[in-house]
Parts: sequence; structure tokens; C-alpha cells
Amino acid sequence: MKAHYQTQGFLIILSGPSGVGKGTVCTALRKRMPELAYSVSATTRAPREGEKDGVNYFFKTVEEFKQMIENEELIEWAQYVDNYYGTPRHFVEETLASGKDVILEIDVQGAHQVKERFPHAIFIFLLPPTIEELKNRIIGRGSETEITLAHRLNAATDEFKQINQYDYVVINDEVEKACERVEAIIKAEHCRVDRLVMTE
Amino acid sequence: MKAHYQTQGFLIILSGPSGVGKGTVCTALRKRMPELAYSVSATTRAPREGEKDGVNYFFKTVEEFKQMIENEELIEWAQYVDNYYGTPRHFVEETLASGKDVILEIDVQGAHQVKERFPHAIFIFLLPPTIEELKNRIIGRGSETEITLAHRLNAATDEFKQINQYDYVVINDEVEKACERVEAIIKAEHCRVDRLVMTE
Repeated sequence: MKAHYQTQGFLIILSGPSGVGKGTVCTALRKRMPELAYSVSATTRAPREGEKDGVNYFFKTVEEFKQMIENEELIEWAQYVDNYYGTPRHFVEETLASGKDVILEIDVQGAHQVKERFPHAIFIFLLPPTIEELKNRIIGRGSETEITLAHRLNAATDEFKQINQYDYVVINDEVEKACERVEAIIKAEHCRVDRLVMTE
Repeated sequence: MKAHYQTQGFLIILSGPSGVGKGTVCTALRKRMPELAYSVSATTRAPREGEKDGVNYFFKTVEEFKQMIENEELIEWAQYVDNYYGTPRHFVEETLASGKDVILEIDVQGAHQVKERFPHAIFIFLLPPTIEELKNRIIGRGSETEITLAHRLNAATDEFKQINQYDYVVINDEVEKACERVEAIIKAEHCRVDRLVMTE
């Protein structure tokens, strides 16, 4: 009898409302967990200075992007203003097959799309400690009018209602604590009895 | 809206076959996680030199112990040769209510009893990397005859079949790695969405 943990990597979805700090937590996680693979998004927006194709984004024309949607090459996608953003399936599937865990940092809408395609992925909802704290963080960005602030807070309230579709909730009270929790979740998931492989 | 993690502690069961290293892992965990409460067993065996009542064990007479069984004051118990061993309910429940997690290191039979009384406890099966490794560890203790060795290995094989009743499997390839896994499991369980408390 020999027992070992699954060699296939796990797909981890880090989602939550706009302003909760998904990007900050992901940046801190990269330092903490260099063994994790971070999915690179495809986008139709123009590269900013210093951004590299295949590193920051896969830069696509609108035509290429629409072709990817049609060919089901994206596991989730969305349009913001004039630009498209999405997660290429190929990179995710190849990386998981190689045994690496992959983390996706996406909005709640995107997470919903992924859930349909990857029901066994690990879904983590990043939560602000209070709605007031979320408000402060959005205001802190300084880029919001009162109307868009109200819009974002309403959207967040709607998104909180979807929390039960997630497996875990990580309260982002402090970035380092939030990272510790995400790391523990990933390690623990590898130990779940239904992920174990037993051979004679 | 305010979200916070449950303030009630969790009951964690660390179980597995005889010889797998439950005691060693628990001793290492005590150093690593001093915030965890370690359940103190009741026993009818005589105290050894230096052992303190309420610290190493709660020392009981056979009559007292039988009374505890009758009063359902034990969440699991067993008889080995002439002595009784069991886990007092009072300490576990008081400690959980105070907000501390409690870990029980017990055999598979005991874990089964706890599962009936505490179905929401977190059940961790400590597994040897291979059955050969388990054999070597039991032999390494030097206290086994060939007959008891065969008996222990048979018992272990039966116990492996109950693994699906557990939530997690921790492979005890190295003590420190095993401890890291247990620690991650406990942290992750605190983040499970069904443990979250949301208030308006």
C-alpha cells in the first residue's frame, strides 16, 4: 500500500468585490508562494510602458480576442468599457497538468463563469472586515465620484450574497494575515481525503 | 455588515494506526501551536513517577471511571489490558466554549466514537508513507513479538479502510512536514464559508 497526494495541480480562485484588495493580496502572495503559478490574462487594451506580452498580459487585437471566445479558449471573460479581459484556458490547463497550482485573481462575475467550467476548483472570497472599511478603501483610491462609489458599494452588497457559492472566506483585515490564510487553505486542500491517491 | 470568524473553538481529531507517530506529531505540534489545547485523558492506571493529575492524566479509580462512563462524561473510552482510558467531555466542551481549539490524539476506534458525538469535528488521519515504513517503525520500537507485529499490521490495514470517514489525510513522511499540514488544516477550517458569522 502506498499513499500519496494528487500530482495534478489545483485551480484556486481568489475573488471578491472591487476595492477589497485582491491585487494587493496577490502581489504579496507571489513573494510568499513563488511555487504558485499566477494566471496571465488576455486583454485587448494597449500595453502600458514596460508591460511585456506573456508576462503582464497576453495582448490581443479585438478580432483575436473574439476568436478566442468563439473557440472556447477562455475560461472566463468580461468587457470593461472598450476593452476585453479574459483568462486563457491553455495556460491554466497546461500548468495544472504539470503539477503546479494556479491562482486566478478575478471579479465575482468571472468566478461565477469559472465555477461552471471548473466545479472542483477552490473558491476563495476575499472579504473586507466591514462595509465601512471597503468604502474607505475605495475612497482612498481617489478615483471615484460619489455616483461610482455608490455603484461600487451596491455591487459589493450584491456580491456578498453569492458568498455561499464559495468554499472559503478570507477576511482581508491585514494583507499578511490574509496571505497566511490563503496559503493555509491551499496546503490543507492538498490533504483533503478526496484528493488522496492510494495504490496497492 | 460585519463579518467575523466563529468564536467557538474547533475540535480536531488526530488519529491513525498504532505506530504511525501520533504521539511524536502531537509533541511537535505542542511546540509549534501553543495556542491549541491538548485534551488530557482520564485513566485508571497508576501514575508513573513525575506524572501529575490533571496534567498528564486525570487519574481515576476503576469505580470512578465506570461512573464517568455511566454518566456520559466521556466522549470516547477504551480498555487496554486491565486499564481504562478515556476523554473527559467537560474539559473539551469548556475549552471549545472559551474559543480555543482542542486537539485529541486517539486511536481509530476512539475517533469513531467521537464522530458519533461530534460530527462537525475535524477528522485527520495520520498515514505512514508506506505500509513497509509502518512495519519498520513498529519494529523500531523493539517491544513487539512477531505475533503482535502481524496483529498490528492487520489492524492497520483494517483501519486504512475507514479513511473515507475522515476529512483530511496527513502523510507522516517527516514530523515537521506533518505538523505544517495539521497547522494549515486548522487555519483553513477557520476560513470555511460555513464557519463564517455575518451580522448586519
